[in-house]
Amino acid sequence: MALPAEFHDIAKRVNNWGRWGDSDEIGTLNLITDAVVREAAATVRAGRRVPLALPLHQDGVQTGLIPGRINPLHTMVAINVEFFGPDTVATSDDAVTMGLQAGTHWDGLPHISHSGRIYNGRPAGSVTGHGRAAFSGIDKARHLVSRGVLLDVARARGVERLDAGHVVGPEDLDAAEELAGVTVRAGDIVLVRTGQMQVYLAGDKQAYGHPSAGLSIRTPEWFHARDVAAAATDNLTFEIFPPEIEGLWLPVHALDLVEMGMVQGQNWNLEELSAVCAEERRYAFLLTATPEPFVGGVGSPVAPVAVL
Amino acid sequence: MALPAEFHDIAKRVNNWGRWGDSDEIGTLNLITDAVVREAAATVRAGRRVPLALPLHQDGVQTGLIPGRINPLHTMVAINVEFFGPDTVATSDDAVTMGLQAGTHWDGLPHISHSGRIYNGRPAGSVTGHGRAAFSGIDKARHLVSRGVLLDVARARGVERLDAGHVVGPEDLDAAEELAGVTVRAGDIVLVRTGQMQVYLAGDKQAYGHPSAGLSIRTPEWFHARDVAAAATDNLTFEIFPPEIEGLWLPVHALDLVEMGMVQGQNWNLEELSAVCAEERRYAFLLTATPEPFVGGVGSPVAPVAVL
Amino acid sequence: MALPAEFHDIAKRVNNWGRWGDSDEIGTLNLITDAVVREAAATVRAGRRVPLALPLHQDGVQTGLIPGRINPLHTMVAINVEFFGPDTVATSDDAVTMGLQAGTHWDGLPHISHSGRIYNGRPAGSVTGHGRAAFSGIDKARHLVSRGVLLDVARARGVERLDAGHVVGPEDLDAAEELAGVTVRAGDIVLVRTGQMQVYLAGDKQAYGHPSAGLSIRTPEWFHARDVAAAATDNLTFEIFPPEIEGLWLPVHALDLVEMGMVQGQNWNLEELSAVCAEERRYAFLLTATPEPFVGGVGSPVAPVAVL
Amino acid sequence: MALPAEFHDIAKRVNNWGRWGDSDEIGTLNLITDAVVREAAATVRAGRRVPLALPLHQDGVQTGLIPGRINPLHTMVAINVEFFGPDTVATSDDAVTMGLQAGTHWDGLPHISHSGRIYNGRPAGSVTGHGRAAFSGIDKARHLVSRGVLLDVARARGVERLDAGHVVGPEDLDAAEELAGVTVRAGDIVLVRTGQMQVYLAGDKQAYGHPSAGLSIRTPEWFHARDVAAAATDNLTFEIFPPEIEGLWLPVHALDLVEMGMVQGQNWNLEELSAVCAEERRYAFLLTATPEPFVGGVGSPVAPVAVL
Repeated sequence: MALPAEFHDIAKRVNNWGRWGDSDEIGTLNLITDAVVREAAATVRAGRRVPLALPLHQDGVQTGLIPGRINPLHTMVAINVEFFGPDTVATSDDAVTMGLQAGTHWDGLPHISHSGRIYNGRPAGSVTGHGRAAFSGIDKARHLVSRGVLLDVARARGVERLDAGHVVGPEDLDAAEELAGVTVRAGDIVLVRTGQMQVYLAGDKQAYGHPSAGLSIRTPEWFHARDVAAAATDNLTFEIFPPEIEGLWLPVHALDLVEMGMVQGQNWNLEELSAVCAEERRYAFLLTATPEPFVGGVGSPVAPVAVL
Repeated sequence: MALPAEFHDIAKRVNNWGRWGDSDEIGTLNLITDAVVREAAATVRAGRRVPLALPLHQDGVQTGLIPGRINPLHTMVAINVEFFGPDTVATSDDAVTMGLQAGTHWDGLPHISHSGRIYNGRPAGSVTGHGRAAFSGIDKARHLVSRGVLLDVARARGVERLDAGHVVGPEDLDAAEELAGVTVRAGDIVLVRTGQMQVYLAGDKQAYGHPSAGLSIRTPEWFHARDVAAAATDNLTFEIFPPEIEGLWLPVHALDLVEMGMVQGQNWNLEELSAVCAEERRYAFLLTATPEPFVGGVGSPVAPVAVL
Repeated sequence: MALPAEFHDIAKRVNNWGRWGDSDEIGTLNLITDAVVREAAATVRAGRRVPLALPLHQDGVQTGLIPGRINPLHTMVAINVEFFGPDTVATSDDAVTMGLQAGTHWDGLPHISHSGRIYNGRPAGSVTGHGRAAFSGIDKARHLVSRGVLLDVARARGVERLDAGHVVGPEDLDAAEELAGVTVRAGDIVLVRTGQMQVYLAGDKQAYGHPSAGLSIRTPEWFHARDVAAAATDNLTFEIFPPEIEGLWLPVHALDLVEMGMVQGQNWNLEELSAVCAEERRYAFLLTATPEPFVGGVGSPVAPVAVL
Repeated sequence: MALPAEFHDIAKRVNNWGRWGDSDEIGTLNLITDAVVREAAATVRAGRRVPLALPLHQDGVQTGLIPGRINPLHTMVAINVEFFGPDTVATSDDAVTMGLQAGTHWDGLPHISHSGRIYNGRPAGSVTGHGRAAFSGIDKARHLVSRGVLLDVARARGVERLDAGHVVGPEDLDAAEELAGVTVRAGDIVLVRTGQMQVYLAGDKQAYGHPSAGLSIRTPEWFHARDVAAAATDNLTFEIFPPEIEGLWLPVHALDLVEMGMVQGQNWNLEELSAVCAEERRYAFLLTATPEPFVGGVGSPVAPVAVL
């Protein structure tokens, strides 16, 4: 079905096209100013570092359902080769083939189009087979370091993990913000924890994928009101899946990426972070999450680290 | 030729096997303590972020000389596909095949073996075709955030870039340290700039590769004396290439990775950082450089960012 | 468990090491002489061609059970690109990543080793991470054209397909030979049909894989007595799986590839061929099945065609 | 520049759209009838087999000039792994990433479009990032076995190899046909030898690529008049390169693939075949050259064999 009026209404309210100029390619990442980063660095008190990436290997989260998005095939191309003769120093080298959205990753802005457009009104057709994304490729981010805020919705709701059908709405984000004791502000990167990652960690990839708790179509306005720079979740689909409005697929993707120009992270492992934040009683931290600079990439693996 | 006595003498002096226990897999990364990270965060004053990774694309630094180490083949696996029917939200996805040491990367400890051993005395044979590195895989690093110090040897020597035959020795590092006005200390990540990257940026891959200025066999002791956690350079080979002692290939690799257990970075673009540090008159900063967690990887691409 | 006496007894009887000289790398393919090929060509009467390869796509027979053996990831690297300017001729190009044993394929001789040896007594260690197979790589076959004989065991037994537990023994091959009205002779390529392929074609990959009817440990002697040049089957595992002798895994692989030096084909689609042979009442034909010449490959995809 | 009148005139004369129905997807391969194949089999007299594929390895013919068309990256994913426990049978497996047009290959019909169309008038847009070619994918060929005829232009012209600027025209094909003593007829696969392959075999990839002798824009009519089923050459570009008419790039590709619907082979090694045909004094043979059935592939590696 075509996108309904409800979608278009929200789209109008969160749209950032032209906000940073017609030639802008990074959207809400513009909100990460030097001042934001200074304050982010100032949140570091203990010096603890918490990694948020899943291991990269063939037994990753992908099940084959999404065509082409393969788990890493990691191979050796040299094993202890004495390139310079016997009894010399030996070298081992490896290589990989993988979907750029296969594991813990960022969706780049051109990952999604609707009505023939990507972020900032560029034509969807600017994504091509040989050039990849001509605009807003993931390499345009250059660096992605800011204040991170964990919105631990599962903990705020008093559960280990949200039920598969739980639509994470603004009221959930409010509750998590209150638990955090932090006011989300411009330039923040928001990490929304549903607890869904536990399903994968327990070994059930199929159930991890869907049905899954996830973000509501009502969350983009919440992000937009606070001028969030980026958001990431601990599930495969980012948003609730199957969708909350029948027949309206991936509306949150379309609102965040296309309308707002806000990159999204998926498959982030927030379990250790949840424990550390609870222990430290601090939910804001320095977050480093720079994507690998694939030129024209519509996504990228990322190895985020929270520094508290 | 077999490794000469000179090599073995240095090896004895810088060896860290057993220093952090027989089961240790991360070597000098143990030196990055919470305290080091707190101090690293405290170096951030301006909030400026400088990316140090080269773009990932097929026109990367590899020339085909190193077998299997291919530049990224970045392909689209979906372009604006309306998976859920006409006029719905459309998705683009991409994939990549690449050598893990092809671009801006970390060498993992098991990247190199000599005399049948990798770091901490593990057998070289623990690197296999299906399991990759059983010990000290790059995923064991988990996070890599510390204080970074730029040792701008080219600038300290008053040149745009060092001559191809320039062996960067302890005296060069001392001079750069003096220029920096910083004392390198335990847990630091040292970035050594030769200026060689300019050759690649100017379009000459062959000349970028070698001959190339690079680190001397005398530098591992310098790193060891200061308990440096990791080191990275702006050239392909890390160390001087061809080597300073005829027939002794990759001795610095062997000393750093195998003996000390110190990860090495290569193909880091330090040009913008050099300009920013000179402008800010500060050469120490927060460095975030977490490798992608390839399980058992002997290397990994990395997208490092210096935060000043 | 170590290989039992029964295995070693058969091994002794079918061993071909040294039969074609110590430097031989192709084993029973030596049996395909010019005379054999002339006679193979003479079998062509109708001019009908029957393809035996499964389609190559991401939905292939692999389920993820065999690590690294991934179904083809087939991607576009250029789509209608006008490399030479607007309104000129446009080009589309594609690329693939796949396990060489993923679909319809030949196992090369070094695919299997036992007791530290591959075919002709070469050390198993001659297969390496950078050089692949130093001996008997699949490229050494150069060409693979001979007389093919369909041994349609399922049809001979009067069933659509053999039960999953059916161990195909010499008596089955005899029955199929009788049905065929052909005497298998030196240099022939024997295609053994179990009907198991129907399970995959019906959409059940898991059940296709195993349990599966397949060849008995008693068949290598049958092949050896007739000097068969190569054999292929319409299942994933070639031999009965799980194995007929508990704890003795892949004995037929070891006997065929290591001892006899006979290449094996798997995942061959023999359904159409079965119908055509029955219709033509002829079970011998010209078979063309040259592997792709991967240098040092331990396997290769193949697109075999029977010409009747 | 837009395609000139000369191109469109020839296009009109060789166009086969609709000739085998509006739903046809294989073009001139329709000309390979059972009768043609019977006669092809009848050419086999000696039983000699000559392979025509180049080895597949990283040192293949590609130089990096054509984006995305990478030489094979052939890696091991398992080396002598005892999956079932110590002292059991051990397995080695390999994998590959490669451009489908990288080595000895067939161009599928949708490899080329012009004026927004591929063969049989289908829209160029039917080639997509996720589905590859919706029409005339290389898998539609199913089998490719016919009579092959070597047109040894270099030998007919009395040279080892044609000069780089030599435009192979109808007069050259006539001369080679006369040398062959064979009349090319409907359903034949014509192999045109320029000798250019010698340049690659001598180690000079750059010079092999271009400038290169190759087919003239006048040859499609020659093929069309004889109803040739397919044609292959021993160079990288098939046609003369740089082109004979300035600014008119790849006209032969467009005429053969789009207008006639005739698949083209490139990088075929015809050196051994040239010697064998001269020795046998026979230039017609059974040719087997079935592409790997990549679903929707716009090309495929092939391991052709001539049987004389």
